[in-house]
Amino acid sequence: MSTIADTTRNGIDTEQLFGTLDLIKEQPELARFQFRATNRWLGGAHNRSTIKDFYAAGGEDTSRGEEFEIDAGEPAILLGTDTGPNPAEYLLPALAACLTTTLVYVAAARGVHLTEVESTLEGDMDVQGALGLSDEVRNGFERIRVSFRVAGDAPEEKLREVVERAQARSAVFDMVSHGVPVEVGLVTD
Amino acid sequence: MSTIADTTRNGIDTEQLFGTLDLIKEQPELARFQFRATNRWLGGAHNRSTIKDFYAAGGEDTSRGEEFEIDAGEPAILLGTDTGPNPAEYLLPALAACLTTTLVYVAAARGVHLTEVESTLEGDMDVQGALGLSDEVRNGFERIRVSFRVAGDAPEEKLREVVERAQARSAVFDMVSHGVPVEVGLVTD
Repeated sequence: MSTIADTTRNGIDTEQLFGTLDLIKEQPELARFQFRATNRWLGGAHNRSTIKDFYAAGGEDTSRGEEFEIDAGEPAILLGTDTGPNPAEYLLPALAACLTTTLVYVAAARGVHLTEVESTLEGDMDVQGALGLSDEVRNGFERIRVSFRVAGDAPEEKLREVVERAQARSAVFDMVSHGVPVEVGLVTD
Repeated sequence: MSTIADTTRNGIDTEQLFGTLDLIKEQPELARFQFRATNRWLGGAHNRSTIKDFYAAGGEDTSRGEEFEIDAGEPAILLGTDTGPNPAEYLLPALAACLTTTLVYVAAARGVHLTEVESTLEGDMDVQGALGLSDEVRNGFERIRVSFRVAGDAPEEKLREVVERAQARSAVFDMVSHGVPVEVGLVTD
């Protein structure tokens, strides 16, 4: 077995993972991160977000070579031209990705080799809320269902533990489940 | 003035917009929508969501020609290789896109011609929560700040009203501010 085979599990370098955890335990001030996005309206239902730099571990992180572009749109029935997923749909990949990554890292830390992680997500919405037609109906999804299929070299009970731990530690699961204070400011000049 | 110039405002066909609102007022059961995503782990911090079909207005909507693919990843400091924005970052474009689209539709409905809508978003996170190092620190962002720059053919007061109405009706702003019940299921066979 090579060194890489020894320390890498599920594609995660567990030596680096445990090293990061130890470092933050010693210097909790390194745990302050800030993530950012900018968005520009391109006409109609089309707008584009860009993501690149962020603050991490005591300084600006400029390791990313190029920015990510995220185009949003609406389907025809919601008056768009499918220039991208619609904004509410984007919440589902954010949630799926976060639960999946958390699950993969937790499994790596706990010695579970995963072979497959798939999920399907559904969000139910009564659009009377967002369209301003009812004050009785909320604007967002009433509920979100996530169904995972996970396979790996551990008994079902262990895989269940890993999925439960992922829910207990996922950043987006926390935010979508419990909400976050959002401040909105406006400049008009 | 052509007919298109008369009914299209901010790239939105307002005749179609008011027609949609009238139709749903008459038949509120058409307001039931369901949005969906599937996600697959591709190794390490890399996973990919796909979005295509959805349920809308009494039936499956198959109008989209092709599916959207959304790749997530992590930067090096979080043990990834930048295969995409990280999951928490994806919450920011979801929020920016929803506030922007809602704002643009509200402006179209209220007769405001917009010339510019831009926003910057910041989310502050203490990663001790998501990394499992502290039970005192939440996993997600502590707060999100959104700063809009909006320009159009209306006085500042009217533009402020439009931005306030967008917050009052945005699906993702509602979900991120107030939370949504999320059910997670697991299949291991």
